[in-house]
Order: sequence, then C-alpha cells, then structure tokens
Amino acid sequence: MLGVGLALAALAASPCHGRDAAGSTPPSMQALRAHAPSTPDSMLASAPASAWRPLDAGDTLYVNLPQGRVVIELAPQFAPRYVDNIKKLVRQGFFNGLPIFRVQDNAAVEWGDPTGRRSVGLARRAVPAEFERPARDLPFTALPDPDTYAPQVGFAGGFPAARDPVFGRAWLTNCYGMVGAARGNNVDSGGGTALYVVIGGPQRQWDRNTTLVGRVVQGMPLLATLPRGNGPLGIHLDRRHWVRIESVQVAADLPPAKRLPLQVLRTDTPTFTEYVEALRNRRGPWFKVPAGRISVCAIPIPVRPAG
Amino acid sequence: MLGVGLALAALAASPCHGRDAAGSTPPSMQALRAHAPSTPDSMLASAPASAWRPLDAGDTLYVNLPQGRVVIELAPQFAPRYVDNIKKLVRQGFFNGLPIFRVQDNAAVEWGDPTGRRSVGLARRAVPAEFERPARDLPFTALPDPDTYAPQVGFAGGFPAARDPVFGRAWLTNCYGMVGAARGNNVDSGGGTALYVVIGGPQRQWDRNTTLVGRVVQGMPLLATLPRGNGPLGIHLDRRHWVRIESVQVAADLPPAKRLPLQVLRTDTPTFTEYVEALRNRRGPWFKVPAGRISVCAIPIPVRPAG
Repeated sequence: MLGVGLALAALAASPCHGRDAAGSTPPSMQALRAHAPSTPDSMLASAPASAWRPLDAGDTLYVNLPQGRVVIELAPQFAPRYVDNIKKLVRQGFFNGLPIFRVQDNAAVEWGDPTGRRSVGLARRAVPAEFERPARDLPFTALPDPDTYAPQVGFAGGFPAARDPVFGRAWLTNCYGMVGAARGNNVDSGGGTALYVVIGGPQRQWDRNTTLVGRVVQGMPLLATLPRGNGPLGIHLDRRHWVRIESVQVAADLPPAKRLPLQVLRTDTPTFTEYVEALRNRRGPWFKVPAGRISVCAIPIPVRPAG
Repeated sequence: MLGVGLALAALAASPCHGRDAAGSTPPSMQALRAHAPSTPDSMLASAPASAWRPLDAGDTLYVNLPQGRVVIELAPQFAPRYVDNIKKLVRQGFFNGLPIFRVQDNAAVEWGDPTGRRSVGLARRAVPAEFERPARDLPFTALPDPDTYAPQVGFAGGFPAARDPVFGRAWLTNCYGMVGAARGNNVDSGGGTALYVVIGGPQRQWDRNTTLVGRVVQGMPLLATLPRGNGPLGIHLDRRHWVRIESVQVAADLPPAKRLPLQVLRTDTPTFTEYVEALRNRRGPWFKVPAGRISVCAIPIPVRPAG
C-alpha cells in the first residue's frame, strides 16, 4: 500500500501519442510525465513526522505465505475479545500450516481450519460477537459526505468506521483490506479461528454482521491476485488449490531487528484532513470534474517504512 | 460473473466446528449447508425468461488473452462515437498483440499501444469526450438509497449509472468491471486506443472524467488476478511482465456457432427490482442486520449461458 496516495491520484497513463526513440524511454514514464504531481501525494511528502505513527508491534500480525508476507494491524479498540483470542491462537501456532481455502472474486479471501479438528489450546473456539461498540469516548474523524449505508462515516484510530449518533454506536466498515472473523449462523459462533479479508469492492452488507478485527496494511496484492475458487462463495473445492499459510506471528514476539518498521498515517490530524480534502477535490491537469465528495472506502490509509 | 447472486448472498463458510469423517465430505460444503439458500439467488432461479436479454453480438467484444477470454458489452447509448471507433480499431486488428501494461492494485488494468506508433487505419486516434449524455429519454431504474457522489444512481440499459435531475445529465459510474477509455490531459485526447477496466473498489472519482465504453460481463478474474505492476500507477516497468493480448474480436464477426451465447439480467423489469430489494435486505439464517440500503456498485448484474 506504499505510495497509494500517488496511485489513486490520477487515472493512469493514457497512451503516449508521440513517437519515442526506439523505445529507449519506457513509454509509461513518458505518459506519466504528462500528469502533474498528484496533490494528495505531494501533500503527504511534506507532512510532518507527527502525522505518522508506528505500528504497535503488540497488535501487528505477520501472515507468512509462500508468496510473501501480509501485515495486519489489529483493532482492539473495536474487538478486544477477538483480538485477544486471535493473538492466543497465533502464539500457539494455530494458523501455521492452515490453508487459504476460499478466494471469491470481488469479495473476500478466507483462511482457517477447514476441519474444525485443530485444537485451540488456551484460546477459545467461539467468542461473543463484537459487531459494534459505544460511540461515546471513541475519537472519530467524520467525513463530510453522505454514505449509502450509515448515518455517518469516518475514521477511528486509523480504521474506516461508521457511527450512529442517535443510538450512540460505532462499527468498522468492510472496505478493501479489512480483516474480519468468519462465523456460522449463530452470531457468537466466530472466534477468529477463520478470518476473511475483503479483496474487491466494499462488502458493506457485512457491516454489523461480522466482527471486524483489523486491516491489512501491507501485502494486499498477495491476497488479491490469488486464483479464484471454483466452488460456491469462491471456495476451492480442489484442495490442490489451497494456499498453505507457513506461519502467523505477532510482530512483538520477534526481535526488534526482525520486525518490519512500518508507519501509518494518523487519521486524527490536520494532515489527514488535508489529505482527505485533496482526495475529495482532485486537482492537476488531468482531473476536469473533481468529485467534491469521497466514500469512506475510497480513502487508502498510507503506510511507509519508518526512517 | 456467473452465479454472482449466490456469491454475494452470504458471507462464506465459517469453519466447520463439528468433526467430519476423515475429510470425506469437503468441509466447505458442510459449512455451506449451514446457510439457507440466498434470497437473491433463489429469486433469480425462478425469474421468467423475459427478465433476461441476450448480448447484442454487434456490441460485444471478445478480448482473447493467453489465460482465457474476457467478454465486454459495449455501451453505445452512452458513448456512441467511442464505441464506433473501438469497433473500427478491433476490426482492423489494432489490439492484436498489444499488451496489458498496467495492473494497479485496487484500481485498474489498462491495455493498448504503449508506443503510439501503431496505425489506427480508418479509425481515429482521438474522439471528443463522451463523459455524460442527456438524461431525457434515457430509461433509468433509480435506486432508492443515497449515493456519496451523485444526486441519483441506478441502472440504464444494464449499466450502473448516475443522473443529475437538475441539470438533466446522465453518466456511467466506475464500478468493478467497467471499461473506460484512457486519455491524456486533454479531455478529447482519448479514442479507445487504450482501455482500462476497474479491478478493485469503485473508482468513482473518475466519473465524468473519462469516457466509459462498456462493462466486462465475463472473465473478470482473468484481469483481477494479474500480478500488480511495480511502477507508478501500477505500470509494469519491466516489459517481461506485460500480458500480450492475442486478439480482440467483435462477436458479430464470428460465425454464430463460435459466439458465446450469454444472457444478461435486464435492469428494467420487476424481476430486477425484486433482485435489488433482496440484495438491500438480505434474509436467511446468516444475516442478522440487513443493511436496508445498497450502493450502485454493489449490485452485480447476473450473466448466464443461454438455454
């Protein structure tokens, strides 16, 4: 997700209409030069250090796949019991060797124990649902634009979220990269032994129907490019297509030198507000009609290496 | 996109908590049985034949990749000049052998002539923008829910669209699978020689900034799973990662027996309205909080083989 500010800032690179010298310059670079620097991107480049925060290693998971590492930031402020249980599962090696058995196009990937036979040890197999929480005392950066699904949307602690001022409730939203706990029909039947990640358009119909536990902050392409499953809901009926998770680790359990030093843009600063404004009103030579609006799921939270 | 009604109907398959007999039954099937049949899906299964329409072969493109075929329905009701130009390009073999040179995670793939050197023959290299059209006389099935970006959203002729009643304008929306024409900074610099497809969350900030020319009705996974580009905007700087388009064809130019007989759900029938209602208010044993709302980009238009 590095550089995602730039990536979203302009529609790519239309074809280069001029001739270049025997292809010596990558044509894509020529096309890029035709676009001015993106306002959100240049704004981030000059943001103060205080606009960024380090990931908390105690609430960061590394999901190590044969293809590479997926980094997840957990959201204990929304799902304390699930986060606690998932970390217990991780520390017992519960996920090591388990498969990604579902890849549904424009929806979600899911991994976990497909047999239900693996011991959860000191963790719990089921945890009461944490679909929403009180809005009171939750710092919330509200967006100014209407949302299809909720009375109000915005960001809380770096996560896309929604809020109902009348009922005083807040909940996380199923945007791209959000991580949730699968469950059966009983709302309290999940526990984090199976987790899903949204890999396509927002799945807002799942809001308040699942416990969202965090967000992928690095490695989304590793999940989003997996071959889709051929069964219902994208389940890989042929186990040969399952992707085996090598291991899942809590970052804090690794020596500091082995951790990925990532920083995330804070969502409660003037910089963030400026960033959102730049995304709402795209400038530069390419955009002709700035939307003047933005959806909560269309605001990527920038991540960068520390230092 | 076949079976997409089912695919969206329920969050998958949480882990099966019971033990099964030596894995003889795929566990995913066990988990699926725990969910009632999805209302949108069962509704579609009993829809009358009149709720479906065949693709018009004259406005259908086959994009043949090494991985398989992507089928695009063109939208001449929104972009008549672009559609006409693109079909001229296709019929001259313009796209044959050209690369997909850009794959931007959670955004778009793009293909076309990266050198600008290929002759457009009888077609035009640039076509005046068709970002929007008059709303008058455009049949439009409006959705009842608020949209972040437009005064009104809905469907027109099978395509997701927006409408401004005050100014009397309508335009297509950059939802998953929508196909648009890349352009330079000049709004009239596109012509269809480079096309993009939305492969992630909606890119609504591009609405009214590009000419949308159609929609992928089959084959999205072939595009959405392509390895992401490592350059700015997801451009593959290393040409070895480009995917070569074998050929692009207008379906009508193939003998009828060689065409894919696909049907698309009409968006102007009582069946469609019922389908949208079923998506707005998910029922069944799994959903506990039906959203009661839906976004225009969260309504997949079902496609099925004819007969």
